[in-house]
Amino acid sequence: MTDAGLRAHPSVAVVGLGYWGPNLLRVLIDRTDVTVRWICDSDTARLARFGRRYPNVGLASDLDDVLDDPELDGVLLATPVFTHHNLALRCLEAGKHTFVEKPLAPSAAQASELIELAEERELVLMCGHTFLYSPPVQAARELISSGQLGDLYFVSSSRVNLGLHQRDVSVVWDLGPHDFSILLYWVGGLPVMVRATGRDSIVRGIADVAFVTMGFESGLIANVELSWLAPSKLRRTVIVGAKRMVVYDDGSPEPIKIYDRGVDYKDPETFGEYQLSYRSGDILSPHLSTDEPLALQLADFVHGIRTGRTDARRLALARDVVVLAEAAEASLQNGGEQVTLRRHLLISGPA
Amino acid sequence: MTDAGLRAHPSVAVVGLGYWGPNLLRVLIDRTDVTVRWICDSDTARLARFGRRYPNVGLASDLDDVLDDPELDGVLLATPVFTHHNLALRCLEAGKHTFVEKPLAPSAAQASELIELAEERELVLMCGHTFLYSPPVQAARELISSGQLGDLYFVSSSRVNLGLHQRDVSVVWDLGPHDFSILLYWVGGLPVMVRATGRDSIVRGIADVAFVTMGFESGLIANVELSWLAPSKLRRTVIVGAKRMVVYDDGSPEPIKIYDRGVDYKDPETFGEYQLSYRSGDILSPHLSTDEPLALQLADFVHGIRTGRTDARRLALARDVVVLAEAAEASLQNGGEQVTLRRHLLISGPA
Amino acid sequence: MTDAGLRAHPSVAVVGLGYWGPNLLRVLIDRTDVTVRWICDSDTARLARFGRRYPNVGLASDLDDVLDDPELDGVLLATPVFTHHNLALRCLEAGKHTFVEKPLAPSAAQASELIELAEERELVLMCGHTFLYSPPVQAARELISSGQLGDLYFVSSSRVNLGLHQRDVSVVWDLGPHDFSILLYWVGGLPVMVRATGRDSIVRGIADVAFVTMGFESGLIANVELSWLAPSKLRRTVIVGAKRMVVYDDGSPEPIKIYDRGVDYKDPETFGEYQLSYRSGDILSPHLSTDEPLALQLADFVHGIRTGRTDARRLALARDVVVLAEAAEASLQNGGEQVTLRRHLLISGPA
Amino acid sequence: MTDAGLRAHPSVAVVGLGYWGPNLLRVLIDRTDVTVRWICDSDTARLARFGRRYPNVGLASDLDDVLDDPELDGVLLATPVFTHHNLALRCLEAGKHTFVEKPLAPSAAQASELIELAEERELVLMCGHTFLYSPPVQAARELISSGQLGDLYFVSSSRVNLGLHQRDVSVVWDLGPHDFSILLYWVGGLPVMVRATGRDSIVRGIADVAFVTMGFESGLIANVELSWLAPSKLRRTVIVGAKRMVVYDDGSPEPIKIYDRGVDYKDPETFGEYQLSYRSGDILSPHLSTDEPLALQLADFVHGIRTGRTDARRLALARDVVVLAEAAEASLQNGGEQVTLRRHLLISGPA
Repeated sequence: MTDAGLRAHPSVAVVGLGYWGPNLLRVLIDRTDVTVRWICDSDTARLARFGRRYPNVGLASDLDDVLDDPELDGVLLATPVFTHHNLALRCLEAGKHTFVEKPLAPSAAQASELIELAEERELVLMCGHTFLYSPPVQAARELISSGQLGDLYFVSSSRVNLGLHQRDVSVVWDLGPHDFSILLYWVGGLPVMVRATGRDSIVRGIADVAFVTMGFESGLIANVELSWLAPSKLRRTVIVGAKRMVVYDDGSPEPIKIYDRGVDYKDPETFGEYQLSYRSGDILSPHLSTDEPLALQLADFVHGIRTGRTDARRLALARDVVVLAEAAEASLQNGGEQVTLRRHLLISGPA
Repeated sequence: MTDAGLRAHPSVAVVGLGYWGPNLLRVLIDRTDVTVRWICDSDTARLARFGRRYPNVGLASDLDDVLDDPELDGVLLATPVFTHHNLALRCLEAGKHTFVEKPLAPSAAQASELIELAEERELVLMCGHTFLYSPPVQAARELISSGQLGDLYFVSSSRVNLGLHQRDVSVVWDLGPHDFSILLYWVGGLPVMVRATGRDSIVRGIADVAFVTMGFESGLIANVELSWLAPSKLRRTVIVGAKRMVVYDDGSPEPIKIYDRGVDYKDPETFGEYQLSYRSGDILSPHLSTDEPLALQLADFVHGIRTGRTDARRLALARDVVVLAEAAEASLQNGGEQVTLRRHLLISGPA
Repeated sequence: MTDAGLRAHPSVAVVGLGYWGPNLLRVLIDRTDVTVRWICDSDTARLARFGRRYPNVGLASDLDDVLDDPELDGVLLATPVFTHHNLALRCLEAGKHTFVEKPLAPSAAQASELIELAEERELVLMCGHTFLYSPPVQAARELISSGQLGDLYFVSSSRVNLGLHQRDVSVVWDLGPHDFSILLYWVGGLPVMVRATGRDSIVRGIADVAFVTMGFESGLIANVELSWLAPSKLRRTVIVGAKRMVVYDDGSPEPIKIYDRGVDYKDPETFGEYQLSYRSGDILSPHLSTDEPLALQLADFVHGIRTGRTDARRLALARDVVVLAEAAEASLQNGGEQVTLRRHLLISGPA
Repeated sequence: MTDAGLRAHPSVAVVGLGYWGPNLLRVLIDRTDVTVRWICDSDTARLARFGRRYPNVGLASDLDDVLDDPELDGVLLATPVFTHHNLALRCLEAGKHTFVEKPLAPSAAQASELIELAEERELVLMCGHTFLYSPPVQAARELISSGQLGDLYFVSSSRVNLGLHQRDVSVVWDLGPHDFSILLYWVGGLPVMVRATGRDSIVRGIADVAFVTMGFESGLIANVELSWLAPSKLRRTVIVGAKRMVVYDDGSPEPIKIYDRGVDYKDPETFGEYQLSYRSGDILSPHLSTDEPLALQLADFVHGIRTGRTDARRLALARDVVVLAEAAEASLQNGGEQVTLRRHLLISGPA
């Protein structure tokens, strides 16, 4: 544990002020238990704009200036995907607690390297899987782990919108980690097989649509549609269990709907035919907290810095997301060939 | 051409009064240019019930009684899938024009056998791909073939509801032919590769959920979700083209919505970076005819009987649907292995 | 009680084969406990068309032919509004049990005349307020009468679509009776004041849009929007109670949604300010029967004929609907002036 | 014109940091052509919280400190309704350009007093009718004023949500001004009659639901439902014109939908009956700018300060909103009695 880890009122830097970084900044600025000492971006005009809004925050166009600050406890990285690993390494090596936007790293090996370094240096490392703090995602997990849905038959998900094309990674690495993290959180372990079919419709070499199919050891199958080319934004996941079904629609005023629906199979008593009976009961849309997931997550990071504690299960999940994205990307590159995953010792599942 | 084919006012029989047959019956009874001479079902109680409603129609529990009637011109088969081929053969051999519910046959070979027999006997043969008569499906085809959508990038479709489980075939053979026929009608040819992943959640050996991925020679990819296990009914297809996108939602009061949306790629002039610009224009929901597709289709069949003409392209399409279902089922049985289709001489495409 | 009333297997006539009559016919034909002996319409082409579909039913273009039939037990009238009273009188005078499409009569006096005549002649008289047999309407009534919604604050309803303009009556008499009957059924009594503002946008003298505001003795207020001029069909009613709120949307797959939402008022303890707390709980969409309301209603009518029993409360409600429509029309004609209703001895309310 | 009016880079104060003031603050802080010199609120804890976020802004708990600042050019008031008139008076008397949240004043007389004072002192006065800067509201106005909708038959609007109850004014004064301003903006003049029926369901004396009916000289009628008691948020307005219909739904991803629907009336040629034909054409959802209305409005205010120009038509509209709210409230207090408005010399209408 470094001294930094025990600071009652820590100070942090936000690195990267593109699409997502300003949200981190907005949330942190409003917290009274942490100080934003630095914002850092190579685009100096952008830096100046945010400097005007938050005049007490230091401006840096070079990360070294930030990391050299001995008063600084933590760094939040909201930079392009391909920089995550390298920048996180530098932060950890500089002795800073580190929050990295998802995905944690571009390969499982690099993810593990970061995890080990953080452990060795006794630093908090956290990956920005914000959806795990989302009330509907948590509600669905509770429905699954309490057995209310029964055995899971399949999950079908769509995460599509128009744009924003990434320049360095495919849609599998850009949008996929959202669904992968949610699935791992719900199911508690990696699938044993992955297949992905996609297409680089617009920019050669960068798939902008992909259909990822996964099979789990329990028999559960999952299909995830990912796309930057869609007529309208949709983030919708259907979970079909033996007892109940759930629709999680992130853009709906009723983000979780629990359908008391299913099919009951009655074995034939002697040599007769089996009977199926369809249950069609109530639909319940539970009241959910409207807390902002990002605020909850950053509270966790700040709390981590103050107590020096990392959530090891969450971190293992972040690495498994990378494992899954790697597998899906490999299948995609290989014309949809099946990728088989060895059993991982994932410790991120439901208790 | 049999004499039957030239009857000005033909007479027909409806065979099978289960889920769908009564719809055929209702539509035919209301036509003034055709007479329903027979209804036929092995369930005599059901037969009696419809006999009460339509007292002028002959009742038969044995198809032979129907086929023996020299006054009868055509037969419409709305029986279980596994009976289609055998019953259609009997009808054609008895010299009757034949309408078979989809799919045409359980294998491409058997489909071809029926087609050849009908040709040889100069009888009309028609398969119940009713969706091809649906105004939104036709509108989407027109948008595609006129070039208004531009090159097609991908198609993503969901056809799910709760029930009805079939006892003899998987969801790929039950619901799949709807999407397959629509895709073939829109695209004009078979895909070159098919993969299907599914699961027999309820009844061993009968897949009740499947995700079918297809790749076409043009580069177009398609993903079709088929399921009898769903919280609510959904029949929704998204077509993403280079110029426009279309959402076809069969249960919506606006079944076709055309989105003037897309991404334009600008090549870098020299060594610079490419530029993407996102277009987001109007959404148009065209007024569509509210004609009942089944009524249009049966009008076509009656017209076929009266003129002795079969639509050969439509019949080839019905066979290609069987080819596609066979391929998808084979992949499903094989753990999602890719099935490669040779190029078919499909003549069902847009002109 | 006439002999007709005790017939175990009664026979009936359907009079009027315009928009709604064919539905009555379809439902009755499929019942095994009643025989449709006659269909009657002055339009002989239409009569012939239905005769072709149902060859065992007698055709009549003159009501007298129907009423002269001594074997006939009951008549169902689905004729234009202005004919209801006169034709129902003739049916009752001919000793026939009578089902009249809503509204029962064009004035409260005439409605009472029919009710008295039916009582005197010991004949069943029923008015086609089909919505009272609709599962969502019944579910809402149960929620109200069991106290689950708490005191009712207000009801806001829209019943609009494009067309069909009536030629003889305003939208208040055409669409209003639906909402009026539902309100009376839910609330159990007439309002004490009515105001209606409307406009004859298309045909001079025939209001095609109206906003009807009602006040009840309990303090409940209701606003009903009625229109034949609307971009899309909408039948949606919101009931706001002290404990819960209900949305009844007749065109939705979830026709009843119960919102556990409200505001709690806390009295100031001493001289302080009152406090309001907003409750926002679950939303429940109860599973409802999918029985066809018209089938349930006609079963009731046939049962009435067989047992000779009229539902007097339902009949009183049908008369009160006329009272309410009269009041709303009077206000409409009078530029929105308030019409005050004396307290009626309504016996149609919840027990 | 005061000197303040000609300042190239003006400075302003935001007064009131409750529900809405922080939005004004956020937008102004991000503008480079204006400086926020002061924020002012009597709640010092709240003041301190915003001071932490924006450390360069002066804090004041007393408006006098703000108004005494000779460097200050303008004030934006986001305080409770009953304070608007008094505070605006003080600001104008202190020579400051003034932006007042809607409604401008609690009575037409007081609104006029403010307008006259601003004119006399050559100061910019603006009222926060932000909806007039909303792209869908502007699109609807354009459709109306260009004649694309034809004559307007009626407007039906719902503006409801759960909370927030105001303590000083009814829902007519709180939510009504939104609809009133939009209607005046679209129609170009005040109605000639107003009726309002409502109820104080929760807090005695403060109506929390109201149905306001208006009649215009052209024959147009409008019904507006206003409520703080609703199961879910709804801001939806239907405009029915002779040629087309528009649905404006502020919470929808397609906020404006234009329906090419209507009824055509054909006069009888001789003594025959008139004919109605129903037109049902395309539905168009035009692409609209996603500019934030508040940002556009505040840009206008800053521009006004820099040029010294007030939009007199907009200001007259703000006064007419007060006239309409006064009339509706008077009717509400009077059991729904009609209030007749004299013709106003409104200069806010479409050119």
